[in-house]
Amino acid sequence: MADSRDSSPEGLVSASSSSKYPNFEVDYVINYSLPPPTSPSPLAEAEASFTQLITLLSKTGFAVEVRPGRAPATPTSPSSLLIFLRIASHSLLEKQIYRYRVQDWLYGVRTAAPGPPNSLNEQEPITDAERLRLAYLLITKPVNEGGAGITPGIGQWRFVKSVFPLHDRKFNKEWIKDWSTKYILDDADLLKIRNQFGEKVAFYFAFLQSYFQFLLFPALFGSAAWLILGGFSWVYAVVNCLWGVIFFEHWKVKEVDLAVQWGVRGVGKIQLPRPQFKFEREGVDPVTGEIVKVYSPYKRLARQLLQVPFAGACVVVLGGLILGCFSIEIFITEVYMGPFKQYLTFLPTVLLTIFMPTFTTLLTKLAERLTDLENYETVDAHQASFVQKIFVLNFITSYLGIFLTAFVYVPFGKILVPYLDVFKLTAQKFTAEGKPLPTKEWVINPDRLRKQVIYFTVTAQIVNLATEVIVPYAKRRIFKTVEKVQLEVKGEKSGVEWPKDTEEEHKFLKRVREEAELEQYDVTIDYREMVIQFGYLSLFSVVWPLTGCSFLVNNWVEARSDAMKIAANSQRPIPWRADSIGPWLNALGFLSWLGSITSAALVYLFNKSGGGQLGVGSVWDIPGWALLLAILCSEHVYLVVQLVVRGVIKRLDSPGLQKERAERFAMRKELLERMVEEEVVSEQAERAVGVEGNGEKITREVLEEEARRTSGLGPEKVFWLRQRGAGESVEVGRGLIQLVSLGNNSTAKRE
Amino acid sequence: MADSRDSSPEGLVSASSSSKYPNFEVDYVINYSLPPPTSPSPLAEAEASFTQLITLLSKTGFAVEVRPGRAPATPTSPSSLLIFLRIASHSLLEKQIYRYRVQDWLYGVRTAAPGPPNSLNEQEPITDAERLRLAYLLITKPVNEGGAGITPGIGQWRFVKSVFPLHDRKFNKEWIKDWSTKYILDDADLLKIRNQFGEKVAFYFAFLQSYFQFLLFPALFGSAAWLILGGFSWVYAVVNCLWGVIFFEHWKVKEVDLAVQWGVRGVGKIQLPRPQFKFEREGVDPVTGEIVKVYSPYKRLARQLLQVPFAGACVVVLGGLILGCFSIEIFITEVYMGPFKQYLTFLPTVLLTIFMPTFTTLLTKLAERLTDLENYETVDAHQASFVQKIFVLNFITSYLGIFLTAFVYVPFGKILVPYLDVFKLTAQKFTAEGKPLPTKEWVINPDRLRKQVIYFTVTAQIVNLATEVIVPYAKRRIFKTVEKVQLEVKGEKSGVEWPKDTEEEHKFLKRVREEAELEQYDVTIDYREMVIQFGYLSLFSVVWPLTGCSFLVNNWVEARSDAMKIAANSQRPIPWRADSIGPWLNALGFLSWLGSITSAALVYLFNKSGGGQLGVGSVWDIPGWALLLAILCSEHVYLVVQLVVRGVIKRLDSPGLQKERAERFAMRKELLERMVEEEVVSEQAERAVGVEGNGEKITREVLEEEARRTSGLGPEKVFWLRQRGAGESVEVGRGLIQLVSLGNNSTAKRE
Repeated sequence: MADSRDSSPEGLVSASSSSKYPNFEVDYVINYSLPPPTSPSPLAEAEASFTQLITLLSKTGFAVEVRPGRAPATPTSPSSLLIFLRIASHSLLEKQIYRYRVQDWLYGVRTAAPGPPNSLNEQEPITDAERLRLAYLLITKPVNEGGAGITPGIGQWRFVKSVFPLHDRKFNKEWIKDWSTKYILDDADLLKIRNQFGEKVAFYFAFLQSYFQFLLFPALFGSAAWLILGGFSWVYAVVNCLWGVIFFEHWKVKEVDLAVQWGVRGVGKIQLPRPQFKFEREGVDPVTGEIVKVYSPYKRLARQLLQVPFAGACVVVLGGLILGCFSIEIFITEVYMGPFKQYLTFLPTVLLTIFMPTFTTLLTKLAERLTDLENYETVDAHQASFVQKIFVLNFITSYLGIFLTAFVYVPFGKILVPYLDVFKLTAQKFTAEGKPLPTKEWVINPDRLRKQVIYFTVTAQIVNLATEVIVPYAKRRIFKTVEKVQLEVKGEKSGVEWPKDTEEEHKFLKRVREEAELEQYDVTIDYREMVIQFGYLSLFSVVWPLTGCSFLVNNWVEARSDAMKIAANSQRPIPWRADSIGPWLNALGFLSWLGSITSAALVYLFNKSGGGQLGVGSVWDIPGWALLLAILCSEHVYLVVQLVVRGVIKRLDSPGLQKERAERFAMRKELLERMVEEEVVSEQAERAVGVEGNGEKITREVLEEEARRTSGLGPEKVFWLRQRGAGESVEVGRGLIQLVSLGNNSTAKRE
Repeated sequence: MADSRDSSPEGLVSASSSSKYPNFEVDYVINYSLPPPTSPSPLAEAEASFTQLITLLSKTGFAVEVRPGRAPATPTSPSSLLIFLRIASHSLLEKQIYRYRVQDWLYGVRTAAPGPPNSLNEQEPITDAERLRLAYLLITKPVNEGGAGITPGIGQWRFVKSVFPLHDRKFNKEWIKDWSTKYILDDADLLKIRNQFGEKVAFYFAFLQSYFQFLLFPALFGSAAWLILGGFSWVYAVVNCLWGVIFFEHWKVKEVDLAVQWGVRGVGKIQLPRPQFKFEREGVDPVTGEIVKVYSPYKRLARQLLQVPFAGACVVVLGGLILGCFSIEIFITEVYMGPFKQYLTFLPTVLLTIFMPTFTTLLTKLAERLTDLENYETVDAHQASFVQKIFVLNFITSYLGIFLTAFVYVPFGKILVPYLDVFKLTAQKFTAEGKPLPTKEWVINPDRLRKQVIYFTVTAQIVNLATEVIVPYAKRRIFKTVEKVQLEVKGEKSGVEWPKDTEEEHKFLKRVREEAELEQYDVTIDYREMVIQFGYLSLFSVVWPLTGCSFLVNNWVEARSDAMKIAANSQRPIPWRADSIGPWLNALGFLSWLGSITSAALVYLFNKSGGGQLGVGSVWDIPGWALLLAILCSEHVYLVVQLVVRGVIKRLDSPGLQKERAERFAMRKELLERMVEEEVVSEQAERAVGVEGNGEKITREVLEEEARRTSGLGPEKVFWLRQRGAGESVEVGRGLIQLVSLGNNSTAKRE
């Protein structure tokens, strides 16, 4: 294992990928985009930057090969070069691994310090993920820290379109095949993902798997509840909330457990600097004396406050859209009886389908801009802030409609629907005759809520799933076709012909060119989907208890389709580490808590048997204090149960914690035992003199004589010399005890 | 500093205590109680155990001296021996310190590993507290771990009544003098306490001081509110809750900060085994392979469940007592008009004064028994469980009365008071004439609540303070007098005469005998008092905004009287470490949160101007939903504000965290820099070949020739050999870029 990788490439390449070198030992590919030939000055810039890039990479220790990438199709279309990188020497890789493992140890991620650099693989196998992560850091970290300082897409390196590792096709094939034939993923499956794609991706699948397994219960119980209890059952609501608490608390523990098993517990402390961070000035850290880049925290705080108007804007824009469509829909389906009703019914759907994605995209862009503006120093802080914003966004788009139906439409419908006459008047203007439009008397449609929940928990999920798989594929297809058509129609050709690939490389290069065109995988999107889904279950499943069933089925497919997405529709992700699902954890907790409130309110408002109130009358028949009391109780019971569940789950042992305990124990034991042994041996010999022996009869005379003898010394010296050795002390004490015993005898005699 | 302590006692004794050796260099004194002379067999046991004690201590490395303690006054009264201990050799102390500092480092309490054992004092001064703590551990830890295995009061060592260090009179005198002449205690004052009495005591004073400083605000604002707004002002309620949140969150951060400054952050992880722990069996830890003492967690859980009936018993017993006295009081003061009214008014007070302490003492004993029954393995777990129980107890005794007045008596008085006729009927039976007792028409006394709050926040505090200072002193006095009187009356004398003290030692021994009779200091009692006080402020101060003023004055005195208590009325505490105020933190958080609810309810119920409802009418005039909504809003605003405050406070830097950061940074920097340097030097030399030079003209022909030349190798080898060195890669890339540029030219030409 200690042989150099140059001579024997088996060295540090994992068995799965090295058998036939389908990736030609390439660690990373840089997709270097060239501006269209029509712009000569950027092209010259790109050339200069390219030269520097290669020089830097080579100096850093990479073997470099350049091949043609995408040829420019038309004179105005961009082209690209592919730069292949490989860590040139085994010793460089070894040093990097050693260095980062030491860093981990210093930050407390590893319990024990790593051993000598030449036995790293034996100490802990070097995974593909570890090698690739360190290679990526080597490419991106600043030159003064020993890296090449390449920051893809930023400043000088704006032509570096992407830096990506190559997919291990064989692994991917096996992975997809394996997963599509089994029901449950175990820890070994997750470990494989971790070794291939890094902990960040592995955590997503671990979460998905954990959630999937937990869904079994609401699926079964929900089905039973649906059959026996129907909707709005308080039994279901209580059990569902309890389930939410248990799932959340379990995941919190499981997360730590996995982090320990994967050796990444506490990596959150090792922050990656964000290359986009703009500093105001360089200052000296008063504590460490180091030169640090400073950005005023007050300025950042001021910019963070922009989140408030942002949230406001989301509510107004999306809320307005949803409310508008909602009103139109109610008017058309439940009030309107005029002409074209069958077509007009689709109007709100059409409006939503057109405007919702547009607005969402715009607001997401805005969220991105805002987060950039907040100018965080680290990748994690940036990510957390962004996640917070898109959670707000998605919360509104996903739940507001149902909230409106449940807490506005049904209870206050009688008061509000008359205002929908606005539409009537508007519609009337467009009809030629002046006579009033035919409408029907409006009655609350209590089934509306159920239908809406079913739509969001079944239809929307399926649509989502399909979109995720098909859209990127279709997009690529369409894009290619469009390009082709453009070319044919315009008849323009760039006239550039790349040199032909050699036969051995052609297949490989073709594949790399394809991968270069793929999108980067963003785990945030997948997390968002799952968290929002959990929200439906927690907030609204009491309306339709089959929700859990639908999600169970959906998520089995989801895991596989996400795997497909990574394997076939994305570039191989850079294997970042993570020690948790990050900011999504808070979102989960929030939804679980909010569930206790909405469930109580829904049951109270809609349950027909147990003093159920709505769906028949209006909200005014319900005593408000009772509703509030129900919510208040539900919430506090929830909080108490959470505390209890947390307490119980914390006490359970888990393999990860056991591993950690064992490691820490072994380390401590070794060090401490060595010390105790030394002590025991060296000291028990040196002291313990005079316990036996020294049996000189102790009398007061002797003691006093002793005192006289030592009268030259200070009283505190004399004090300690009065009884020489433990033997004498024992004698003196026994003498005193005898006195007590004798005193009694004498008293007894006297009596 | 490296000289042995045997020859020069200045060695490791702090300057404050070593100047004139008022303590004769004694580390610990064991108060060894002897059974009364009338019981010869226990006396023989005590003698055997004594011999073993001295032998063990001597073997462990202590210098031992025995002196007579309390002489038996009568034949049936116990007597005692005093055993003086001193760590005999400097090297033993050094080894102990080194060992425990290494342990701290292994547990992450220290950032850096301690240096060689002979320079410990230079690395970090050895305080009195550290030396005494290690000496105590040496006395108590098991023999197989190098200690003497003495467990005071338990089993074989039941004659060991106490093991205590001696007070440093000079320090104490200066301490009391210093504190009584200054208003505000700073970090230096706290550091002195920490160095003398250990972190556990220091944390109490730090908390008290922090709380005292924070009280300035409610004192000032409360006075203003009292003058301008009066009671039940919602402005005061909001500000008070906000203050509570800020204080709580600030303390949480301050606590960590202090722990870091004192070098004890994370000592909670190093658990002290509880000697009273009874194990069911010895088992092998599956993880560490170590032999551990096992107690079934299910059995413990079952016993922990006894807390529920315990809480129930507290509620019934204390609640019943309070409710009973409350009813009697209302009846007598507000309804009853019959004879002896002026005397009967005191009846409830008398009943409370008699029964409340009795019941509380009984229930506290029960709580102790229950906690013992739960059989915890560690001292901390035991303590936390006990604190939980006495918090419940004190919550009821302290707040139930006010709760009853505010939420039962005032709102529901009209309905409930008629039931007080029970007393009327009872009273009637005792009066001779058959005519009905004179009573008056009952009206709600809205001032009652205010009076009660004033009683608890002023009168009770003063009484408490007085009790704390005077009672132990009076107790000792009375005890002595009683003994004297007994002796005189019975005329019994034990007949035992201890040998006379030598002149040099007499004063010292007299002092030690006095200290041996003192009680042990229990910081829990002081914490309890402060936390309960904080509760009044948080829960009820909206009733009487001057509460803060009263507490401010009270706590200035409290800090000094607690200092007095430690210095004059208690044995010097064993200087245990701690990294927080422990379980009391949760109690504080709970009270602060509950305050948001009670304040909202109180303001809503009693505020007269802003739609205020009570004090004039009955609860039935108030819409219940509005009250609940007020509570619901208040609570959730509280929770949100808490999150925000937490976020803001976390970002503030503190000296402790800066210190920690500096230490960690220094350690990491040193290690990592060394590594980077090595890398940069060794590697930049070894690679970076071929960036320049190798300027062979690259043409396709050359490349193809190259390929042919290497055709014997696998394609993945050939791939990396195509461009020899970075220079060639640059050339190839630039060639391709030229192609793009030229292609454009050719297209342009063609057009």
